Amino acid sequence: MGEEISLIDFWASPFGMRVRIALAEKDVEYQFIEENMMSTVKSSLLLEMNPIHKKIPVLIHRGRPICESLVIVQYIDEVWNHKSPLLPQDPLQRAHARFWADFIDKKVYACVSDLWKNKGETLQAARKEFLETFNVIEGAIGENPYLGGETFGFADLSLIPFSSFFHASEMFGNFSIKVELPKIAAWAKRCNERESVSKILQDPIKVYEILCLARKLQGIE
Amino acid sequence: MGEEISLIDFWASPFGMRVRIALAEKDVEYQFIEENMMSTVKSSLLLEMNPIHKKIPVLIHRGRPICESLVIVQYIDEVWNHKSPLLPQDPLQRAHARFWADFIDKKVYACVSDLWKNKGETLQAARKEFLETFNVIEGAIGENPYLGGETFGFADLSLIPFSSFFHASEMFGNFSIKVELPKIAAWAKRCNERESVSKILQDPIKVYEILCLARKLQGIE
Repeated sequence: MGEEISLIDFWASPFGMRVRIALAEKDVEYQFIEENMMSTVKSSLLLEMNPIHKKIPVLIHRGRPICESLVIVQYIDEVWNHKSPLLPQDPLQRAHARFWADFIDKKVYACVSDLWKNKGETLQAARKEFLETFNVIEGAIGENPYLGGETFGFADLSLIPFSSFFHASEMFGNFSIKVELPKIAAWAKRCNERESVSKILQDPIKVYEILCLARKLQGIE
Repeated sequence: MGEEISLIDFWASPFGMRVRIALAEKDVEYQFIEENMMSTVKSSLLLEMNPIHKKIPVLIHRGRPICESLVIVQYIDEVWNHKSPLLPQDPLQRAHARFWADFIDKKVYACVSDLWKNKGETLQAARKEFLETFNVIEGAIGENPYLGGETFGFADLSLIPFSSFFHASEMFGNFSIKVELPKIAAWAKRCNERESVSKILQDPIKVYEILCLARKLQGIE
């Protein structure tokens, strides 16, 4: 598009992956600016572009920053509206998609992190919470191929990056997603058949390794 | 509109007020169904209409429930798009409005409740957090009349219900909003000049009294 688009992001961030999948769906090219999340100091660019939250991802379009992954994805959907609509047209379906994206924001990140940040009894509680939360999402998918219904959309895109953490979640929580959450497993496989998703999701083994390293650094094991 | 619209809500809920202001902006008539928040048992209608979060407000339109206040307000803006647009047309301004509504959701409710739920040292911390959070919002208002810029919109509507809690916040936190946050005070007064806002906001004294009662019931004082 020749329009100065860049993204401050970190490869393993599920929030960043949402934005990268949205940009891939829209065929938008951009410059990837890696924020070093292993450093204790945040880059001056990040602090300048997101002074309120100081968090990645930040999309910079024509010099103007847009922050918060779900806000960015809706911005992308509205600006590049020539192809692959992420939100449906119907207001009720749009509300449904936004409701589930919000649910994922409020519940999923916490229950994924709680699995690798804990051990012993609190890990057992985290395991239960993870399975319960994803059970609710299984209920929402129901007999549909996607969380958004018949087509891949905003709610699916909000959730699918967390599938890069499924292997790690299984290792820490000692369960099998295929056995415990068969609809989630089938849904993740289906989403992964899209090029926009498969090229952005990260190697689950690499994600597991970085979480093992984080556990060691934080003295969890 | 003759379209079977009802709202499960509680009079003092700032989230419910958001929805009521949006409906007032659009001149939409609806049936108000009061949920008894003093009861420990939730109504069967609420449990049926919002089985995931079991929370008010819930808008029921043509028999279909829409949950989560910001999702509902966007739904209202999209369905009744004949007047008073709440979100602007420009994608960057829309992103700005959504960013601030999200900030309010993440920060403001917590810092308002922390003021009435605490005493002693933790109350002092809550006081500091309240002033810091609203200071950030003052910065976002800047020299504009509204948080949304030149006109009242989505971000303003997300925040203004909390002004019904300003008197209580001043009483518990022992500060004056007019003195500490003059731009917030002027902004709230300006918003209150709109009929859609003034007829929905609740009497600050009544809100203060119900919070005093809640403090007693919870053994805070």
